[in-house]
Amino acid sequence: MRVRWAMEEVGQPYAVRLVPWEKFKEETHLARNPFGQIPTYEEGDLTLFESGAIVLHIAERFPGLLPRDAAARARAIMWMFAALSTIEPPIVDRDVVEYAEAGKSWQGERFAMVDERIRARLAQLSARLGDSDWLDGDFSAADIIMVHVLRRLEGTGLLEEHPILAAYIARATGRPAYKRAFAAQLAVWEASTP
Amino acid sequence: MRVRWAMEEVGQPYAVRLVPWEKFKEETHLARNPFGQIPTYEEGDLTLFESGAIVLHIAERFPGLLPRDAAARARAIMWMFAALSTIEPPIVDRDVVEYAEAGKSWQGERFAMVDERIRARLAQLSARLGDSDWLDGDFSAADIIMVHVLRRLEGTGLLEEHPILAAYIARATGRPAYKRAFAAQLAVWEASTP
Repeated sequence: MRVRWAMEEVGQPYAVRLVPWEKFKEETHLARNPFGQIPTYEEGDLTLFESGAIVLHIAERFPGLLPRDAAARARAIMWMFAALSTIEPPIVDRDVVEYAEAGKSWQGERFAMVDERIRARLAQLSARLGDSDWLDGDFSAADIIMVHVLRRLEGTGLLEEHPILAAYIARATGRPAYKRAFAAQLAVWEASTP
Repeated sequence: MRVRWAMEEVGQPYAVRLVPWEKFKEETHLARNPFGQIPTYEEGDLTLFESGAIVLHIAERFPGLLPRDAAARARAIMWMFAALSTIEPPIVDRDVVEYAEAGKSWQGERFAMVDERIRARLAQLSARLGDSDWLDGDFSAADIIMVHVLRRLEGTGLLEEHPILAAYIARATGRPAYKRAFAAQLAVWEASTP
């Protein structure tokens, strides 16, 4: 979704090749991504992995997702790193608790500890965002990454504790480019699900 | 260390202002970094947080830490994201287990689970690195971030399982710029420690 959304924002065509889960660890895929993850991005001879790097590359390649001013551009990139290095890790850890620690006697206690870390980050992010529409000035590649990271919390009830963040996500997902990307992603999912 | 090392690699002067731990959550520091973390970077009117963003900014501002070729440059940036988004999170989680979960009945079981995730990442990284000196071609900003991330595992015994990674770290920390940064960091630490 992050890569699709970026491509839709800059108005560039793209094609999607699905990689079945069982092929993530095969040599062909590891040549594209040594950590056996998705997404990967191919453009001519260039192959990239890491959604942050791919979205940043798209934002540098096509206009519309990074400010022209050098300082504003550096801050937009900073927010991409913040979304991935500071906000996302405890959110990923929540998935670890939910799936890898299912059935453990201590799962409930771990959920509470992880949710406390997530809540602290959301409160800080909400305080900084305040009444701004986007993270720093105009909508940028950083908002794509941040909003998609936050959306991983949908269904947990944690986002509802911060109306500023809920409104931020609603603003982002209301963008025509997001809607196109989501519809395309959903169509692929429906076509590939029995 | 990441920022110091980058500044030493590009041969630029810098000054350090220490922020005492108890001031991390005060307004003055939160204005620089909304998540109350270090490091932050100030250059004229520009203030940045997130070590990855700061090192990337330095690498874009001064020559020596990013390839000139556009595709090689995109891959170097990709490795910065990989270090911070894919390699570092389970390493940070190990610190959580060590400190925040000290005394819990399940600490040992969690250590085993986290170490398994770290081992999988180290094995993949080692396989990709192979007999290359650096992550992708010449030494770059990505090696600064990756090596510093890996060094967080020193003392755990996990790095010793991968001679390729141990040699990679030794190669990086043998660089004159690393040695200057480390000596400067050590001097500050010694001066501020009773």
